[in-house]
Amino acid sequence: MTAILSLDVGGTKMAASVLLSDGTLLSKIRVPSRAAEGPDAMIARLIEMAREAITEAGSRVEDCGISVGGPLDPVAGVVLSPPNLPGWDRIPLARRVAGGLGMERARVRMDNDANACVLAEQRFGAARGRSDAIFLTLSTGLGAGMILGGRLHRGATFNAGEAGHQVLEEGGPRCGCGQRGCLEAFASGSGIAARLRERWDDLPAVLRARAGRRDGVSAGHLLACARDGDAGSLALWDETVRRLARGVANLVYILNPEIVILGTIAWHAGDFLLEPLRRHVNAWCWPSLTHRLEIVATPLGPRLQELSGLAVALEPPSS
Amino acid sequence: MTAILSLDVGGTKMAASVLLSDGTLLSKIRVPSRAAEGPDAMIARLIEMAREAITEAGSRVEDCGISVGGPLDPVAGVVLSPPNLPGWDRIPLARRVAGGLGMERARVRMDNDANACVLAEQRFGAARGRSDAIFLTLSTGLGAGMILGGRLHRGATFNAGEAGHQVLEEGGPRCGCGQRGCLEAFASGSGIAARLRERWDDLPAVLRARAGRRDGVSAGHLLACARDGDAGSLALWDETVRRLARGVANLVYILNPEIVILGTIAWHAGDFLLEPLRRHVNAWCWPSLTHRLEIVATPLGPRLQELSGLAVALEPPSS
Repeated sequence: MTAILSLDVGGTKMAASVLLSDGTLLSKIRVPSRAAEGPDAMIARLIEMAREAITEAGSRVEDCGISVGGPLDPVAGVVLSPPNLPGWDRIPLARRVAGGLGMERARVRMDNDANACVLAEQRFGAARGRSDAIFLTLSTGLGAGMILGGRLHRGATFNAGEAGHQVLEEGGPRCGCGQRGCLEAFASGSGIAARLRERWDDLPAVLRARAGRRDGVSAGHLLACARDGDAGSLALWDETVRRLARGVANLVYILNPEIVILGTIAWHAGDFLLEPLRRHVNAWCWPSLTHRLEIVATPLGPRLQELSGLAVALEPPSS
Repeated sequence: MTAILSLDVGGTKMAASVLLSDGTLLSKIRVPSRAAEGPDAMIARLIEMAREAITEAGSRVEDCGISVGGPLDPVAGVVLSPPNLPGWDRIPLARRVAGGLGMERARVRMDNDANACVLAEQRFGAARGRSDAIFLTLSTGLGAGMILGGRLHRGATFNAGEAGHQVLEEGGPRCGCGQRGCLEAFASGSGIAARLRERWDDLPAVLRARAGRRDGVSAGHLLACARDGDAGSLALWDETVRRLARGVANLVYILNPEIVILGTIAWHAGDFLLEPLRRHVNAWCWPSLTHRLEIVATPLGPRLQELSGLAVALEPPSS
């Protein structure tokens, strides 16, 4: 039985894993990305790491799936210019990985992280057997992977799922994309941190104390203080969840999914995020849209990293 | 060659047409809906009208497509409770039409108006050969029909496409659905009229004069005065187009379509609406999403009414 190589290329960490097609993990190596070194150095380390993982697994590997930040061209296997990977402009990552590992180019597939995650949920997680499922990364950024009518929806130029850039408030806070008032500016990890930095002087004392310094404050600090019951932190958390719920409600009106699956922050926060989120969405959306709707955190947790690349490798070429 | 019966059931007008599968019109009858009489009387008149249209066409008819307001269950052929058709609660329209005309139930198909329109655009209009196309009705209401990956996207409970109820402004003007600040409350025919009624005392004198009375003011009056160059009317028109553009931009970020096709109001207004709409969407959305995006008014004009029912009848059962 041959195994499959799963690669995850992020702005903070890179990982190479070898798995069987049923998800059994044979080996896994994770290293810091050191993204500032640029694509050539990163790809060299990625290939070296992949070789080690393959050796450690002791299996023959002919297929590879790569999860990497978009925008990208999944057919050509080219990374275009992800905001979190400086210098990666039109990098033919699939060809370089195939070349570096002596694999057939056609057997190295790649997709953006949100699409890779929803494919993993479809195969191994909460979207199994679902025709219409939305995965929201809810990590540093906020992107959507969408299974619609049983198939991944990529859009005309492979950029579908930029749901974090729907505008919730005209003239609202500045988003990393240049617009104002995007969902991502309110409810992603980077957006939450930016809002907290802006309000630093007015933040609850316990939150300031936990964060230590203005530049280090994060969504995790807010979550911890809100969970501890600090009233001011709870109010900020509620506001964040309410904005997220508005973005989810808009997606429910437009796409009428069976399930919405949320990533990193929801996995950490659990019902502390999911319960108020469900309450808002159910209050705002018509019963005909919500009576069969589930809203959950990913059940795959930290395994999502290796399973997403695996799911990309296993995806039927037709879809 | 057998012909196909196309039925359109709206809150204001009903139509029965007989066409060939290539769109050639053989006969067409249109009458006022008299929706206040309720479903039994309307269905009796619909069936009578259909018989006349079939007789006039002189063709054998075995298939029928019905376009009707949602929400509905297209598989069961049941109209649930459209806001513009009072008393239509769980009405098995497909079965009753089939029974009344002596047709096989399975050969009577039905779908909501936005879905029927995008199917007509896919077969006869601006969405031909497109994998990812969005039709926005832009009529009394504002709903979306969506071709995604080449197929109609209906959603988990057949309610996808309620894009008019994405919220553009928290706490904004009241929408017919009960929420506040929906796209439909700003940019649909009924929403535009409601905004004009609210501001009646402050409206430009020429607009008030053209409308005659507060309760009669409409999007058509605003369009006419804005086209005539009245500065106050132009400002109101620009504001309306800007809101519509925000809703379209959000759809572009989420779905990355090749083409967005707009219905009634855009067909009447033409470039007076389309040019500023395109300008806003191109300014707001990333070039990777817009460089191949087209935004057009329906090229089918008044023919959309009969072609939408025809397209529903011709839709392959698998999709």
